Amino acid sequence: MSLVVQKYGGTSVGNLEKIANVARKVMKTRAAGNDVVVVLSAMSGETDRLIQLAQKAADEPHKSEYDALIATGEQVTVALLAIMLNRMGCPARSFLGFQVRVLTDDAYTKARILDVETGNVERELREGKVVVVAGFQGVDSENNITTLGRGGSDTSAVALAAALKADVCDIYTDVDGVYTTDPNICRNARRLDRITYDEMMEMARAGAKVLQPRSVELAKKYNVPVYVRSSFTEEGGTLVTKEEGTMEKEVVSGVTYDRDQAKITVVRVPDCPGVAGRLFTPLSEHNIVIDMIIQNASIDGHTDLTFTVSRKDISEANRIIAKIAQEVGADKIEVDDNVAKVSIVGVGMVSHSGVAAKMFATLASEGINIMMISTSEIKVSCVVEAKYAELAVTVLHDAFGLGKD
Amino acid sequence: MSLVVQKYGGTSVGNLEKIANVARKVMKTRAAGNDVVVVLSAMSGETDRLIQLAQKAADEPHKSEYDALIATGEQVTVALLAIMLNRMGCPARSFLGFQVRVLTDDAYTKARILDVETGNVERELREGKVVVVAGFQGVDSENNITTLGRGGSDTSAVALAAALKADVCDIYTDVDGVYTTDPNICRNARRLDRITYDEMMEMARAGAKVLQPRSVELAKKYNVPVYVRSSFTEEGGTLVTKEEGTMEKEVVSGVTYDRDQAKITVVRVPDCPGVAGRLFTPLSEHNIVIDMIIQNASIDGHTDLTFTVSRKDISEANRIIAKIAQEVGADKIEVDDNVAKVSIVGVGMVSHSGVAAKMFATLASEGINIMMISTSEIKVSCVVEAKYAELAVTVLHDAFGLGKD
Repeated sequence: MSLVVQKYGGTSVGNLEKIANVARKVMKTRAAGNDVVVVLSAMSGETDRLIQLAQKAADEPHKSEYDALIATGEQVTVALLAIMLNRMGCPARSFLGFQVRVLTDDAYTKARILDVETGNVERELREGKVVVVAGFQGVDSENNITTLGRGGSDTSAVALAAALKADVCDIYTDVDGVYTTDPNICRNARRLDRITYDEMMEMARAGAKVLQPRSVELAKKYNVPVYVRSSFTEEGGTLVTKEEGTMEKEVVSGVTYDRDQAKITVVRVPDCPGVAGRLFTPLSEHNIVIDMIIQNASIDGHTDLTFTVSRKDISEANRIIAKIAQEVGADKIEVDDNVAKVSIVGVGMVSHSGVAAKMFATLASEGINIMMISTSEIKVSCVVEAKYAELAVTVLHDAFGLGKD
Repeated sequence: MSLVVQKYGGTSVGNLEKIANVARKVMKTRAAGNDVVVVLSAMSGETDRLIQLAQKAADEPHKSEYDALIATGEQVTVALLAIMLNRMGCPARSFLGFQVRVLTDDAYTKARILDVETGNVERELREGKVVVVAGFQGVDSENNITTLGRGGSDTSAVALAAALKADVCDIYTDVDGVYTTDPNICRNARRLDRITYDEMMEMARAGAKVLQPRSVELAKKYNVPVYVRSSFTEEGGTLVTKEEGTMEKEVVSGVTYDRDQAKITVVRVPDCPGVAGRLFTPLSEHNIVIDMIIQNASIDGHTDLTFTVSRKDISEANRIIAKIAQEVGADKIEVDDNVAKVSIVGVGMVSHSGVAAKMFATLASEGINIMMISTSEIKVSCVVEAKYAELAVTVLHDAFGLGKD
């Protein structure tokens, strides 16, 4: 008998009919002899509705109260699924974050999971029940409700799978797997049968929305096989797994883009030791994730520092940086949210040269100016003007031969 | 400095504008030098929406899951009020049932409060914060979410006021106090300045919807002064308090009606010891509240047993009773939900004779047939055909001289 963790996203539980569909899939998995733990998101649109309520109540809502508010969406779907399963003759019970308990730090709105207690869940499984867990939420050490950030239910599912030593973590979503790029942009995008944790992590960080990056990080750490599949069809699916020696290493596996980017430049910072630390430490203390950082060569003992953040963090980042920029004697701050990040990802890059050069040349041939560059072992990202994002994706997807024949 | 518990009902927190109004009232109370604990209901209509979702998911939803579902409404309003108060410069934090913690039994959908821990709330009050508590909900000893039944937020507020030894418990609602009868039926209904716990309890049980009966029971037990007032005007209000020797005792203080009634008759029950116990014990074990019970004189060693329950309990009560009726050899069961209960309430009845007789004569003079009668020291209730409910209220209100001059 296997233990299967299944996560269903917002579009898969968008109304009662779809929740009934989930109930049937769960019962089928159980009838095949598996123990099942289900992790659910809120109904699609519900979290946005709650966020709007919060933002109408205050421009910058108190963060722990904000989390208590937006965590209600998952509470509704897990109770509804448990009600339906029981009605259909399948014993089930729901758990909220505090009941599991999913312990997180107190970084409200983007908390990290510290520990998942498994005693309560395991007891119900032993009693033959399906366990339905509210994704996206946990509690801190003082029992305040926390949430894990956009896509946090993926992380809830993988964390539960790791803690319960599940055999597989199925992520059911509205697409049938991971593609070489967004099929809405490139009609010949191709579904990948498997992808390594590292590639998936880079693709997720680079803007592919199919999995929350932290969920992949966790899956890699605890070696949880993650299977991305559609809740509306049995076909397809992409297995996210560790790299195997026998795998054919694609030079480039996928092209991604991310419009949720803003570029902040601190102009003419005195170029002395400790300045970068003084600028970036307070940002991390406020849990603002900095994606790319570029520091130009120093002229006259001054330099320009440019970095990117998520658009939702612009105003907070700007406020924090403005204060420090003044203290360290920088000239001014420039903010540009008219940018997008385009990335190519692939484990094969490690052993192939010229991949980055080919990317730059491809973009240049279309007249697309590159504003920032950042690289990792298996990824190259370029920040370009927002209006070029789709064009850049299309030409790169072609240039690296990723499309269907 | 006083400690004030304020409870706001669903119409008082029906949208963000109304919640902002609540925030201003709370801050005003605080500015006057009081510590404030606020108890909120869900936005008006929200609990009904959630109940409908549950009932679409299953005809008889699993009860603990049902509670987890419908408890979300209060979670939304308390977080929104806390967000608004913080924005307005008033430090505040919200508490859910499990955070307070409000411990209840496990009678899901109509749980009773066993204990209210005050440590967490008192700590926040000492830190100068307004504490906002989700009404209607608690947790049982295994941390399952429970709800307290319709109007349960009143009981949450009084229980908190009792546990915290608050100076007063203000119940803000959409009417400005307790009336001699429903002003929608009798336009000359009069607001009462004060009313005793006992009268209020009888009126609430008899169908006046202004307070949940259990909240009044608790208020009496712990001697909590309860002030019923409107959240939309400073005028009016009714103080519910203990009986004082100097109070002018009205013979009849109010006339109430309750359409949420169904009459069940078990026909030709063998009249032997223990039969009533066998019939009613299982109902109470299922937490079905029986209001009136009438047993007719025995004929041929058989009797008819008639009792009333809340309409929502009809199908469950019918199922339970049908089984036992068969076991004890009763003829059949008759269910009639086309009934209403009309009651007169007043502490003065104790020392006045002829009150019940006057009630019966008044109804008879209008041709209203009385199907069941039940009396307490300070109340007389009659079950009549549902269509006569309003007429009965009007003629009784006049007959006992309760209207404005």
